[in-house]
Amino acid sequence: MAGTRRSEPPDVADMPPEEFREWGRAAVDWIARYLDEVEGYPVLAQVRPGELRARLPENAPEAGESFTDIFRDFETSILPGVTHWNHPSFHGYFAVTGSGPGILGELFAAALNVNAMVWRSSPAGTELEEHVVDWLRVLLGLPDGFVGVIQDTASSNSLTALAAARHRAYPEVREKGLFALPRGRIYASEEAHSSIDKAGIMLGLGHEGVRKIGADREFRMEPAALRAAIREDLAAGIRPVAVVATVGTTSTSSPDPVHDIWTIAKEFGLWLHVDAAYAGASAMVPELRRHFRGWEQADSVVFNPHKWLFTPVDCSVLLTRSPEEVRGALALTPEYLRTREAGVTTNLMDYGIALGRRFRALKLWFVLRYFGAEGIRDRIRHHVSLAQTFSSWVDEAPEWERAAPVPFSTVVFRRAPSGLTGAEQDTLNLETMERVNATGEVFLSHTRLHDRVWLRLSIGNLRTGRRHLERTWHLLRTLGAEEEGIPTVAASPDQRQS
Amino acid sequence: MAGTRRSEPPDVADMPPEEFREWGRAAVDWIARYLDEVEGYPVLAQVRPGELRARLPENAPEAGESFTDIFRDFETSILPGVTHWNHPSFHGYFAVTGSGPGILGELFAAALNVNAMVWRSSPAGTELEEHVVDWLRVLLGLPDGFVGVIQDTASSNSLTALAAARHRAYPEVREKGLFALPRGRIYASEEAHSSIDKAGIMLGLGHEGVRKIGADREFRMEPAALRAAIREDLAAGIRPVAVVATVGTTSTSSPDPVHDIWTIAKEFGLWLHVDAAYAGASAMVPELRRHFRGWEQADSVVFNPHKWLFTPVDCSVLLTRSPEEVRGALALTPEYLRTREAGVTTNLMDYGIALGRRFRALKLWFVLRYFGAEGIRDRIRHHVSLAQTFSSWVDEAPEWERAAPVPFSTVVFRRAPSGLTGAEQDTLNLETMERVNATGEVFLSHTRLHDRVWLRLSIGNLRTGRRHLERTWHLLRTLGAEEEGIPTVAASPDQRQS
Repeated sequence: MAGTRRSEPPDVADMPPEEFREWGRAAVDWIARYLDEVEGYPVLAQVRPGELRARLPENAPEAGESFTDIFRDFETSILPGVTHWNHPSFHGYFAVTGSGPGILGELFAAALNVNAMVWRSSPAGTELEEHVVDWLRVLLGLPDGFVGVIQDTASSNSLTALAAARHRAYPEVREKGLFALPRGRIYASEEAHSSIDKAGIMLGLGHEGVRKIGADREFRMEPAALRAAIREDLAAGIRPVAVVATVGTTSTSSPDPVHDIWTIAKEFGLWLHVDAAYAGASAMVPELRRHFRGWEQADSVVFNPHKWLFTPVDCSVLLTRSPEEVRGALALTPEYLRTREAGVTTNLMDYGIALGRRFRALKLWFVLRYFGAEGIRDRIRHHVSLAQTFSSWVDEAPEWERAAPVPFSTVVFRRAPSGLTGAEQDTLNLETMERVNATGEVFLSHTRLHDRVWLRLSIGNLRTGRRHLERTWHLLRTLGAEEEGIPTVAASPDQRQS
Repeated sequence: MAGTRRSEPPDVADMPPEEFREWGRAAVDWIARYLDEVEGYPVLAQVRPGELRARLPENAPEAGESFTDIFRDFETSILPGVTHWNHPSFHGYFAVTGSGPGILGELFAAALNVNAMVWRSSPAGTELEEHVVDWLRVLLGLPDGFVGVIQDTASSNSLTALAAARHRAYPEVREKGLFALPRGRIYASEEAHSSIDKAGIMLGLGHEGVRKIGADREFRMEPAALRAAIREDLAAGIRPVAVVATVGTTSTSSPDPVHDIWTIAKEFGLWLHVDAAYAGASAMVPELRRHFRGWEQADSVVFNPHKWLFTPVDCSVLLTRSPEEVRGALALTPEYLRTREAGVTTNLMDYGIALGRRFRALKLWFVLRYFGAEGIRDRIRHHVSLAQTFSSWVDEAPEWERAAPVPFSTVVFRRAPSGLTGAEQDTLNLETMERVNATGEVFLSHTRLHDRVWLRLSIGNLRTGRRHLERTWHLLRTLGAEEEGIPTVAASPDQRQS
């Protein structure tokens, strides 16, 4: 039966179905085992720069190769260079989980391979994206009127939102550009993400076009400082363009006071963009929603299901109450994309940078249905609780200190022995981190606050449990204190099992 | 053995491995059958706007659901809304194939779920990307010195390249923005892609900052007109920023004369960006490389493996001879991403818009190895040959005409009965297209050239054979001519098999 339709000679055809089935099943089995045993791999890749490239042939093969060979090389050459974000003790940056249903969603999306640039090019791609984003809107407690789009990353979504803000501030910018216009400014706290700086540069506002507002002792933007900065700029003839509030800053996961910031944005008629890339998903949890108060008044909100909503990278959602302004700033429809349905359907290409758009909604739909809203809330609560536990250990330990409250699942801390200078403490903490990371058992990253080095422990992996945190805490205390006693890195899952 | 490591309670855990294995295998089997029998589905989704959303529950489920239910709904609710880009008679836009090895690459990338923003966060993600892009550079005939990066789409890559060009033209732009600077201009042919206009708008140059250069009768940019435009702008105090040459324009797949354009770009010291999003892959074929002559002198080149290199969307490669200018225009390294390896390794986040970066190199590596360079050339040649065949039928048919030469795999044509006015011919062609598309057997898109409507037939699917083109040609001739005789759409693969 299969094969009756295949009329093309094999040298110009796709991989035969039976071969796809065989290797697809092998891949699924491998992945199931990998996810189950990922704890046996070193979390941070234990390779030197250039080591992987040195193992690969200088040129692509002329003749096709068997999947047996490709898969073998995947295991022997690629895998040792992988930092295992799936590892339960991956606590760097913001920890994440792709999750089983999310991976299956990616598999189907890759197979269907639609490009949802206009409705017609994949009605399901467009309508499921609109629908799932609306499910999320409701779960996050955002009012009717917010509509959304999925793009790759928060960088792209913040750039898109700020392009719309620029269009509001300078109606002539779309046609004429920024030449000859008064200087403009985006306001964000000094703890805001670098993607806001990049957006300012991209949009032609310049790095000076992003003014950093001071934060309080808990690393939250100071509304009074924001108002003063806007007034100062206005007096100097500088045009305010937008305010960016962050809920869940990258360093300390601090929530800016969005409501207070909104009142100022409103006072001056400015676009308010809320960057909740990491923490946004936790607004689904009633007792955490207070950190977001005011975001329902924003013009735009970005959050990343690929961060804390168990969806494989990449998947970032932009919700906006001003979709017509986004479209007004960016939409362009060349003739070849004009369709009969225009006017009654949404063409999602009009709301972002990329014309080509993957079917990202599928994985998100799988994740939301498989876990259910309550299942997702339980998992987020569990991560917050684990972070609280770790935080309490830090608080109770002499010579250790914490930088900030722990509203979500990220703890920022350091060892601060009283006999050392600040610079010596920095060195101690960086060295401790490198040693802990070198064990292959744990991965932590760092940040800098008030010119001091701090370690970060972020929890977002569905495989992380209390025992992993206990081991991490043990390594931190012992490896920072002495040169000896560094445990050997787990070389392979098989060795760990024996 | 499995399960010994799982210490977390199921209500906060990932999908269990045995369930992932079961549904993963079911997914693989479904996909193998789908790809084999895709011809039985209607190529253009036969749904009305809003039909899919009406089938879905208004809210996300509170409790998790079984994969049995999710998979059933995928088949009954989502699939009817899918336009099947995998169908051998999908000829709209630019036709593509995700291919078996590409789909498996996506599966592994989703499972590993690394974020290759800096080297350390996934050495394999960074080094395989550098390596595979270098394999491609050699295959495309680009000289040593070009290095590259993968982003989602050509839109993002052209925006990145033109940001670097803007930085070269206005060294102060990164800090100060475009305010108070002399107006600037990007030059591109009137056939250039809308993403160039979007980049101009995004970058703050304005839509007026993208000047369209006239094309010749074969829709290739006129170098003399380019030089005249630059001179005119210079005389008017406008600063030239970049020239964009297109090899394989969206409407007619025409190749701009890159070498001639380069000599002009060089004369005026301008960044030359080559948009070869669709046609770029065909530079691997020696007898087609002449269309690209001169691109080796460009500052940047973009081409999309997700278009004609059998890789699932999204995967777009930016190659540049001026990586330090790209980095200079855009790179920002916050403290939390500073690593020991900086200086000896590449942090790919520095070469684009998005900070978060999927492991896209994996699918590309699978595709290049599985088919091999010669296998890819054979497939591209086959598509070019099929397009030539279709083109010859058009040329031989009375009352049909072709818009342009067929250098690659796209034919632009229309029915032009002598008794009709141009406007009547337009209506006839649009109606013919809608009727042919409504059969569900074929999908074509259209374009507009010299203010007339033309139909486009693009070939890029590994399942397309001569018999499909014969059927398409038959439908075009019969459905355009009379109201009767419209065949019934194939409702499902099972019905087609009986």
